[in-house]
Amino acid sequence: MIKYSRSDIEGMDRITRLTLINSITGYKPANLIGTINSIGNTNLAIISSVVHLGSDPALIAFIMRPLIGERHTMENILETGYYTINHIHRDIAEKAHFTSADFPREVSEFDRCKLTPVFLDDFKAPFVADSKIKLGMSFAETIEIKRNGTIMVIGQVEKICMDEPYFTPSAGLDLAQAGTICISGLDSYHEVEKWATFPYARVNEVPEF
Amino acid sequence: MIKYSRSDIEGMDRITRLTLINSITGYKPANLIGTINSIGNTNLAIISSVVHLGSDPALIAFIMRPLIGERHTMENILETGYYTINHIHRDIAEKAHFTSADFPREVSEFDRCKLTPVFLDDFKAPFVADSKIKLGMSFAETIEIKRNGTIMVIGQVEKICMDEPYFTPSAGLDLAQAGTICISGLDSYHEVEKWATFPYARVNEVPEF
Repeated sequence: MIKYSRSDIEGMDRITRLTLINSITGYKPANLIGTINSIGNTNLAIISSVVHLGSDPALIAFIMRPLIGERHTMENILETGYYTINHIHRDIAEKAHFTSADFPREVSEFDRCKLTPVFLDDFKAPFVADSKIKLGMSFAETIEIKRNGTIMVIGQVEKICMDEPYFTPSAGLDLAQAGTICISGLDSYHEVEKWATFPYARVNEVPEF
Repeated sequence: MIKYSRSDIEGMDRITRLTLINSITGYKPANLIGTINSIGNTNLAIISSVVHLGSDPALIAFIMRPLIGERHTMENILETGYYTINHIHRDIAEKAHFTSADFPREVSEFDRCKLTPVFLDDFKAPFVADSKIKLGMSFAETIEIKRNGTIMVIGQVEKICMDEPYFTPSAGLDLAQAGTICISGLDSYHEVEKWATFPYARVNEVPEF
């Protein structure tokens, strides 16, 4: 067995530690956050930290580092109160990856990475037209994690748009049909294949293993 | 295009809404949280909301609903200050899934679901012996999300144990080699295959798409 202690981790060079700790939680969802500011400049950022908070109300969060790349996203969300979350599929993964470059304010990642902004039903933030599952979000609140200066951004699901009927109440949402991919670490992209669905776990129906 | 508005979502029956909103963020990591209380009762809970907060210090969070299934996990973490996060691979996925049944306090999911607890190097919480990548965590803090009563549990990585050398600084952590799987929605388990790694995104090295 290979073991790393806390002091082993703290003693790693920065890039090695980033690489290890960014991948140690397992697979991460691959999403693009679309925003616009009050004078019409759009912004697009790849985010792998989107997490479900609850279904009623439908709340979703993501984690943001406030002082680096994603700061334009945060500023825009606070300015307009709206943003979009767009699933990444294989055909747009490379473009999506490069939205993480630290472009200056006046460069829109939509333009530079050739992803198409679309304003559906006058929603106040740009969706990614190329994405097959798109969420329109209203900003709810930020919670600062003082321990390391990151910020949890919480939003309410206002709108869900799908290119095809990927969702049915009986079968659930078919992410494989939509081609949604996942991320590990900082730079690795993965295709996913469903192999099992297990029934809701009731105490008196748990199998004898 | 298929569209669901906020009022469409709010008007769904509870199970349909749970199914949709639990899967709409994309793929989720598949982990088991191992704990023990002060009188030696162990507990094991499947969690799909683990999220990376930062690498220096190495902080990881997960989201917990305080008043239902996972409450024993929370109580144990607060009692001892320690817990483990254990990756789920295909061979243990069904057992892992059924840890979500609402077993009474005196039943350990380790025993009932035939997963083996192991205390490595006297770490104060049980690891899952069957898991190939195991994290030992010290409890740092909880942050309550007042909007829906969920709790973010933040911990510091104290220890990483791997069955094989899945991590190298150059190639990163090979989750596919470890067989780590991911989850969508409440009940669907997926195998994952890496198909691309893209370089670190520097502004002047972004391809012309």
